[in-house]
Amino acid sequence: MKLTLVGAGPGDPDLITVKGIKALQQADVVMYDALVHPDLLDYCRPDTLKVYVGKRRGAYSCVQEDINPLIVHYARQYGHVVRLKGGDSFIFGRGYEEVDYARQHGIEAHVVPGLSSSYAVPASAGIPLTTRGISESFWVVTGTTKAGQLSADLQLAAQSTATVVILMGMHKLPEIMAVFAECGKTDTPVAIIQNGTLIDQQLVIGNVGTINEKVAESGISNPAIIVIGEVAALTQMDLQSALNAATNKIEVE
Amino acid sequence: MKLTLVGAGPGDPDLITVKGIKALQQADVVMYDALVHPDLLDYCRPDTLKVYVGKRRGAYSCVQEDINPLIVHYARQYGHVVRLKGGDSFIFGRGYEEVDYARQHGIEAHVVPGLSSSYAVPASAGIPLTTRGISESFWVVTGTTKAGQLSADLQLAAQSTATVVILMGMHKLPEIMAVFAECGKTDTPVAIIQNGTLIDQQLVIGNVGTINEKVAESGISNPAIIVIGEVAALTQMDLQSALNAATNKIEVE
Repeated sequence: MKLTLVGAGPGDPDLITVKGIKALQQADVVMYDALVHPDLLDYCRPDTLKVYVGKRRGAYSCVQEDINPLIVHYARQYGHVVRLKGGDSFIFGRGYEEVDYARQHGIEAHVVPGLSSSYAVPASAGIPLTTRGISESFWVVTGTTKAGQLSADLQLAAQSTATVVILMGMHKLPEIMAVFAECGKTDTPVAIIQNGTLIDQQLVIGNVGTINEKVAESGISNPAIIVIGEVAALTQMDLQSALNAATNKIEVE
Repeated sequence: MKLTLVGAGPGDPDLITVKGIKALQQADVVMYDALVHPDLLDYCRPDTLKVYVGKRRGAYSCVQEDINPLIVHYARQYGHVVRLKGGDSFIFGRGYEEVDYARQHGIEAHVVPGLSSSYAVPASAGIPLTTRGISESFWVVTGTTKAGQLSADLQLAAQSTATVVILMGMHKLPEIMAVFAECGKTDTPVAIIQNGTLIDQQLVIGNVGTINEKVAESGISNPAIIVIGEVAALTQMDLQSALNAATNKIEVE
C-alpha cells in the first residue's frame, strides 16, 4: 500500500518530471484533478484505474473530505495510488493533508514535486520573479483563503519590494489592487496570465491603476495568475529600461 | 541561432522535465553550472559540446559578465545553445540577464522552467510551504544580495504569517535569526536542508532560538535551504498537532 503525490506542472504536459512519469508508470490507480492535462494519463499502464476527482471553487472542504478516504480505499484495494495534481502538490494543493491522512491510516506516502504555476506560468510569459536590481524576493499568496477573505499578509506584501504572485485571486482583483494602490503603488506593473504554458495562453499587462479595466476589456478569467511588481513589465521592455524604471522608484542595491 | 535556458531542478536528476530533456537532446552546445547533476549531460548527443561555466559565491558579477558573451559566441558558431542551470533559471538564477543579452545580440531565446529548490527541497524533507490553517503564503528571499547585505524585505517577512524560505543564506544565519527573534518569533520552527533531493540530504530542525547551535553541532553547510515557519515542524509531528500549535500562536482563518 502506497501513495505517491505527483505534481503535474502548470499545463503543458511536457512540463512533468521524469520522476513523475516513473510514478505514473507504476501506478495501480491514478486519482487526477481538473487541471491535469489528459495526455499525462497515457503514461499509465492500460490496466491502471483512472479516477477523476476534480474540484470546483466553493466546494473545497466538502470534496477534499471525500478524497482522503478514497485514497485509503484505493490503496487498500489495489496497492499503489498516484495522486496527480495540477502544479505542485505542496503549494496550495492540500497535498499535505492527503499525505497526513494516508499515513495515519498506515499507508506509506511520498511526494514528487511538480512545477508550480506560481513561477512557471510567469516564466512562460517571459517574466522572471526575481532579477538583480529589480526584485530580490517573491511572495506567493492565495486569493482564496479558507475563510474566503483576503490574506492580511497582503498588506505587508504591498509594502515590500517583493514581486507578489497571487493564485486563485481573479474574483478578488479589484480588492487586491486597492491594497496596492493604498501603498502608493498605482504605477506598479501588473501581469495576468491565463492558461499559462498552453497554446491558448493569454496575457494582459497593465499597472495597479489600469489592470481592472484591461481585464474587463480582454475577457481574461480563471484559471489565471496575477503578478505584481516591476518584473511584470519585462515582457514589454528590455532589462536596461526596466532597471532604469526600477531605480527611479526603489532603492537599488 | 538559439538559446534555451533549462532549469535542471534541485539535484535529483529525475527531477528535470520532459521538455528540458528534449532541449538537451537538440543542443549543439550545453553550458552547465556547478549545481547541475552530471548524469543530465548524458541526454545530449555525443557530438554536443559541453562547457562548464560554474560560479562560486563572491565572484558572481565578474563571471556572469563572461558567460553572457560566451553564449552569443557559441550560438553564432554552433547554433543551438542550451544553458543548463540548477533549480529554475528565473529564480535567483540570473537567467533573465542571459535571455536579455542574447536577444540584444539577435539570438532567439526560450525558457524551460525547472523545479525551484525553494519548495522542492522542503518537499523532499516532508515540508509543504503552505498548509491550510497553518500558512497561507510563502516568501522566497535570497541571503546574498548584490550589495552583500540582508534584504530589507526580511523585516516585513518576519512580521507576516508567511513561510519564509531563504536561499544562499547560511553565511548570514545568525543575522537572519536575530531579525525573527526581534519580531517575537523565538519559538518559530526552522528547518535547514542541505543537498536536498539527493542521497546525502541532511536535515536539521530547531527553532529561531536554537537553530544556530544545532547547525554548529551538525556541521550542515552550503548549499542549503532555510525554511522558517510553523510548517517546518511538520517533519516531526502530525497535522493535527501542528494545527493546534499554530492555532495557539496565530489567528487561523
